[in-house]
Amino acid sequence: MKIEVKNIGIVGYGLIGGSLGLALKKYTDNYVIAIDKNKETLAYIQKNNLADEVSEVNSEILKKCDVVFVGLYPEDILDFMDKHSSGFKNDAIVVDLCGIKQFVVSRYGNIKNAHFKYIGAHPMAGKEKNGITVADADLYKGASFLLTPTECVDSETLEYVKYLAKKVGFEKIVVTTDENHDKMITYTSQLPHIMSVAYILQDAHNKCDGYYAGSFKDMTRVADINSALWTQLFKNNKEILTNQIDEYIESLELIKKYINSDSEELKKLLAKSKKLKEWQDENYKY
Amino acid sequence: MKIEVKNIGIVGYGLIGGSLGLALKKYTDNYVIAIDKNKETLAYIQKNNLADEVSEVNSEILKKCDVVFVGLYPEDILDFMDKHSSGFKNDAIVVDLCGIKQFVVSRYGNIKNAHFKYIGAHPMAGKEKNGITVADADLYKGASFLLTPTECVDSETLEYVKYLAKKVGFEKIVVTTDENHDKMITYTSQLPHIMSVAYILQDAHNKCDGYYAGSFKDMTRVADINSALWTQLFKNNKEILTNQIDEYIESLELIKKYINSDSEELKKLLAKSKKLKEWQDENYKY
Repeated sequence: MKIEVKNIGIVGYGLIGGSLGLALKKYTDNYVIAIDKNKETLAYIQKNNLADEVSEVNSEILKKCDVVFVGLYPEDILDFMDKHSSGFKNDAIVVDLCGIKQFVVSRYGNIKNAHFKYIGAHPMAGKEKNGITVADADLYKGASFLLTPTECVDSETLEYVKYLAKKVGFEKIVVTTDENHDKMITYTSQLPHIMSVAYILQDAHNKCDGYYAGSFKDMTRVADINSALWTQLFKNNKEILTNQIDEYIESLELIKKYINSDSEELKKLLAKSKKLKEWQDENYKY
Repeated sequence: MKIEVKNIGIVGYGLIGGSLGLALKKYTDNYVIAIDKNKETLAYIQKNNLADEVSEVNSEILKKCDVVFVGLYPEDILDFMDKHSSGFKNDAIVVDLCGIKQFVVSRYGNIKNAHFKYIGAHPMAGKEKNGITVADADLYKGASFLLTPTECVDSETLEYVKYLAKKVGFEKIVVTTDENHDKMITYTSQLPHIMSVAYILQDAHNKCDGYYAGSFKDMTRVADINSALWTQLFKNNKEILTNQIDEYIESLELIKKYINSDSEELKKLLAKSKKLKEWQDENYKY
């Protein structure tokens, strides 16, 4: 694969998009264009030299981009694509970075004869704060990058996106379907966030000073949630998520039943849990 | 308070009892007697000089102890007390260290005119492994020590136990009722362990390599559970625990409902979660 220096536009230059831009600047020779609707953000980027060029969202700047990464909230991606996708350069590679994939990929990944190539992606990294001021060129070091190309994506395009991902620090690149992505992420990320929110909402939370140790801290860590973003992530994945919550509640009900009536079965279930954790520690390494 | 050097017996010299013994040896001049039913454990303690004296459980050794810490599983405490409490020295201070308090304190903390003084305690520290080989003189550094004395405990005895707790490294000492202890611990520790077990039992657990990040790790950490111990802790606290699991399931059901039908309420609930976490970070310091 011959890799040429390209104009890479990043729409939404916050924590996710901005960190990608900073990494592209630090680790590649590509020309990085920060595209954002927020003028203060653009001024901050320019002042601190966090991109090679800054621009508001418009067709002129998009026409210039060989590659467009879209670092917006899920519903904002729809808005952006509906308004601007006709303005992409011919054969532009368009990669969205949001945390659910069926919602966007089912709309833009299957357009026959589109003049651009759409790939869904999900960088598995983040911080507790948001925005360009906390963006970090090394945010993605060691993290997973999930890709959900449809049949419309040619292998050369896919290889190029994987190549860029490696360059900016991702350690593990996983290619899967948008549906499988959403199922897995529902389990590994959406459900944990819901568990944490449900936990912190309990009455005892503000009365337990002095009574907590490690497990309380584990269970509350991600309760510090971005409500606008996660509302979109949850509601636009509601079918899979509802099933996952139901399966989790079934497990809780089973444990509750055994606590109340069957110590031997309870002990077996806890022993199974221990074995699963040991298996996890052996097999999930990164 | 005049503090004299005492003979301190520790029954069950594993991670919890053994760490206490090592800390008493390291930070006080008391004479530490390791009492355990396991002969290999006693040999290991003696060989490595982890106590001043070792003994199997018998009335002779108990007669020698001014203070007895009981580091056994909840149901084993009942067994130990029923067999051996008549053999305690007059006015001996007896402190049990198990993680539920009503179960033991309701039995031994309210005996009128007992010849010993019984206090329930709960050291809020642990490790993922158990036994004397992982005991650590500094396990309790910075941790909480929860005490649940009944009205039968005089203030001098209580002050003495608090004094010892400070000496071995506990930072925060909380005195409360056995009932309130169990309510708080059910929220801060028992429910999180159940959440983690229920989570790891989900079908997706062994299929999600490459799809996980921090929140998956948080939620699975304490699934590596000691099944024999926690079966006893759960079942002998079943009334409070059942209520707590029910309250938690209610929160999950509410979130599920909003995901499916009311984005504005969902957003508000997530914003409330964020505020609670911010409040927690401000107010729960240690």
